[in-house]
Amino acid sequence: LTEDDLIRSFQAQARRLGIASGNGVVQGIGDDCAIFRPPGGRSDLVFTTDMMHEGVHFRLGESARAVGHKALTRSLSDCAAMGARPLFCTLSLAFPKEAERWAKDFYNGFSRLASVHSVIIAGGDLASTERICCDVAVCGQVPRGKAMLRSAAVAGDTIYVSGTLGKAALALESGRRFVPQARVQLGEQLRDAGVRCAMDLSDGVSSDLARLCKASGLAANLTDVPIARGATLAQALHGGEDYELLFTVPHSRGVPKGCHAIGHIMEGRAGLVLFRGEPLAPQGWDHFRSQ
Amino acid sequence: LTEDDLIRSFQAQARRLGIASGNGVVQGIGDDCAIFRPPGGRSDLVFTTDMMHEGVHFRLGESARAVGHKALTRSLSDCAAMGARPLFCTLSLAFPKEAERWAKDFYNGFSRLASVHSVIIAGGDLASTERICCDVAVCGQVPRGKAMLRSAAVAGDTIYVSGTLGKAALALESGRRFVPQARVQLGEQLRDAGVRCAMDLSDGVSSDLARLCKASGLAANLTDVPIARGATLAQALHGGEDYELLFTVPHSRGVPKGCHAIGHIMEGRAGLVLFRGEPLAPQGWDHFRSQ
Repeated sequence: LTEDDLIRSFQAQARRLGIASGNGVVQGIGDDCAIFRPPGGRSDLVFTTDMMHEGVHFRLGESARAVGHKALTRSLSDCAAMGARPLFCTLSLAFPKEAERWAKDFYNGFSRLASVHSVIIAGGDLASTERICCDVAVCGQVPRGKAMLRSAAVAGDTIYVSGTLGKAALALESGRRFVPQARVQLGEQLRDAGVRCAMDLSDGVSSDLARLCKASGLAANLTDVPIARGATLAQALHGGEDYELLFTVPHSRGVPKGCHAIGHIMEGRAGLVLFRGEPLAPQGWDHFRSQ
Repeated sequence: LTEDDLIRSFQAQARRLGIASGNGVVQGIGDDCAIFRPPGGRSDLVFTTDMMHEGVHFRLGESARAVGHKALTRSLSDCAAMGARPLFCTLSLAFPKEAERWAKDFYNGFSRLASVHSVIIAGGDLASTERICCDVAVCGQVPRGKAMLRSAAVAGDTIYVSGTLGKAALALESGRRFVPQARVQLGEQLRDAGVRCAMDLSDGVSSDLARLCKASGLAANLTDVPIARGATLAQALHGGEDYELLFTVPHSRGVPKGCHAIGHIMEGRAGLVLFRGEPLAPQGWDHFRSQ
């Protein structure tokens, strides 16, 4: 069982019940965000939700402010991947009663980042539990029909990433601090430049590119990846939580500075990724795969 | 520290940062749902999010299907309290790898109820953790400006509840099964009848009525409560999770069958609730209050 298998089985059941799309939902389970089309409006709304759990996504020893920052970054990054401007968020937060100071520091980090991106904190839920966890939902806005999708890659497209890879994996292994930044501005810029296919790199390019290819019914040939200073090739290929954008364009002109071409989309088995000609197994983070 | 104190401190910080409202968010932290007004649209959208944690909101021994049903019911009930029609939801679910069967049963209960209310499952997030928890966000639709609010009570209003109280508390104590139902249809019916003030009973009427009064800057005199068969007065006053609607109307005509008048709104200290003339302390469920 992998995370993707589970998502597909949940999606299949929603389809059988007739509740996988409709009511204005034009993109349901399976992309970085869901897309809702308000009747008569000129904008689509995108929705994403991301959890973080103590002992899984962070440790208690980490700065609570940094954890709050990252909690919002994850969802903002999903918005960025759709090319959407984030409008508002909700925060569900559970923590032990005695961790009130921690929770307030978390909220400081969370709300500061919300303020930087002018994201309204519209609501949420609180609970007292033994271990800390949170779930953040973000709603963003994108011109109608212009959201970038995982499924929109075309054979022949050049594949790009928005920065170097392996930064978060390197920081984790070396105990150094790394504060990821959601590429919100870049996402809107790419959308305005007509880019149709993007996703964010949360689990590692070997896994995430395979997902993009699978969603598009195509394969990819990865020729090179920009490795972060000090990181290994394995960290760059399989390390998660860099929150860079992965996107494809029909030709190379007009790609913003700092973005790196890393390969091409091609016909082939849906989801297959070659690296320098050899099949590359998706070895990024998966919550449910047996190790 | 109480849950309400913490919510108010989070809200105050969002205000200081200028991110408590705006971007189309016309009702932020502090009601059953946030309200978003899409530019130019004839409808408002409402958003709510509710967590459930193993050992806090449910035990592993309970039916996973029933837990899934309840997880969605909590958010549907918040929608109902605003008089909104639920459109779609997201589900964040965390569970141990070995609990795959449990998770699938949970999703069965969740998705069946979604199907009953024609609610689209638009996305979510999955994680593997030691203990099970979930967070459900629901988006609903209500005619522009017509959402029912906690803050809209007026002195002289009669207070109603939609059914008998103490059912969930009685079931919990007696080990019997009780499956709460969100009053979605009733919420829309009340809204169409012009009701302006409502909330749902999730924590117990002694706590929830005090919140409604506080939000409206008024007090209440509770004269009677409809006690569920077999339940005690204390269970009816302080027991949570009945998910009935609490609402106020200027006069008694036109109130749907099955709804019970339980008292009146009056001038007085904001949030004060009298029961048969004596102050009634909010003794419903609070995650953070010291016992």
